[in-house]
Amino acid sequence: MKELEEYILKYGKVLGTDILKVDSFLNQQIDIDLLDKMATAWYEAFKNQGVTKVLTIEASGIALGTMVAYKFQVPLLFAKKSKTINMSDNLYTAKVFSFTHHDTNTIAVDKNYLKASDKVLIIDDFLANGQAVMGLMTLVSSANAKLAGVGIAIEKGFQKAGDLLRARGINVMSLAIIDQMNPATKEIVFR
Amino acid sequence: MKELEEYILKYGKVLGTDILKVDSFLNQQIDIDLLDKMATAWYEAFKNQGVTKVLTIEASGIALGTMVAYKFQVPLLFAKKSKTINMSDNLYTAKVFSFTHHDTNTIAVDKNYLKASDKVLIIDDFLANGQAVMGLMTLVSSANAKLAGVGIAIEKGFQKAGDLLRARGINVMSLAIIDQMNPATKEIVFR
Repeated sequence: MKELEEYILKYGKVLGTDILKVDSFLNQQIDIDLLDKMATAWYEAFKNQGVTKVLTIEASGIALGTMVAYKFQVPLLFAKKSKTINMSDNLYTAKVFSFTHHDTNTIAVDKNYLKASDKVLIIDDFLANGQAVMGLMTLVSSANAKLAGVGIAIEKGFQKAGDLLRARGINVMSLAIIDQMNPATKEIVFR
Repeated sequence: MKELEEYILKYGKVLGTDILKVDSFLNQQIDIDLLDKMATAWYEAFKNQGVTKVLTIEASGIALGTMVAYKFQVPLLFAKKSKTINMSDNLYTAKVFSFTHHDTNTIAVDKNYLKASDKVLIIDDFLANGQAVMGLMTLVSSANAKLAGVGIAIEKGFQKAGDLLRARGINVMSLAIIDQMNPATKEIVFR
């Protein structure tokens, strides 16, 4: 998506060969006009898939997921990263390793909110090594729900998870795919 | 707000005299139609306040904040609860004690995203003892920004933080105020 690529070039900060900071418009401060256009792009891509629920993961996926759920007029569901005292034990869970935080989290959703009759659109901000998306896909399959597809804002194409998922027949729609980043020159190469 | 009170009565679970579970429509699964109506109510309440930014806190405030920011067409900013390696050290911070998790978190926003010229609307899901909202207010005052007001989904009126904030002259708009909950009878008394 042209607008997202322009935001990345203008406001993104290349902090390493695989670290891109987009806190100013996507990850901590969220540009609402851009978010609206992104959600519309995912809606157009998946509108004929019979989506009944949008699934994302806390925290930075929630803003994206909310706007997509609004376009589809279906519920948003977000996986939590740790069990809180207010959550019942009736959970689907999956293990997710975070390369950003260098630790393994258990992600979970209440079994009441994901059903075999659901057709789920997964939304997340980044796709790199695919840990989070594969964890979310595990939750979907644990519920015997169907996967409509995966909508990603920024795919790190050089980390290959997107290509692996597509090779498995999964409909992955990334709005920007980065094939190369150079922290010295700050250059970003889009696919 | 009548619709929110109806959802609380129909789907909320009273787990203790001060614990209300609303995971099925507000906190993990989010009902988009309800969210839209809630955001509209806050927009109507604060639309003449010159709001330039919506501020919330991860994770469960983000869905609410996103829809409110969409109504106002201003950026959403969410405070993070822990420092990640992608965040700079250029932060406004505040300490917040969580009665749910029984621990103290540091919440933080990047100084670049909160300015003295901002007029900030704080949005959160619950107001109980006021720890999170007061932490967010600390971030706003640290930036010398102005506070437009505070929009809360569910205020636990019996825990008094809302009344204390109003007594300080802060414009707190809670869409539902609960004055009493009875875990034995499951009765909920609204103000």
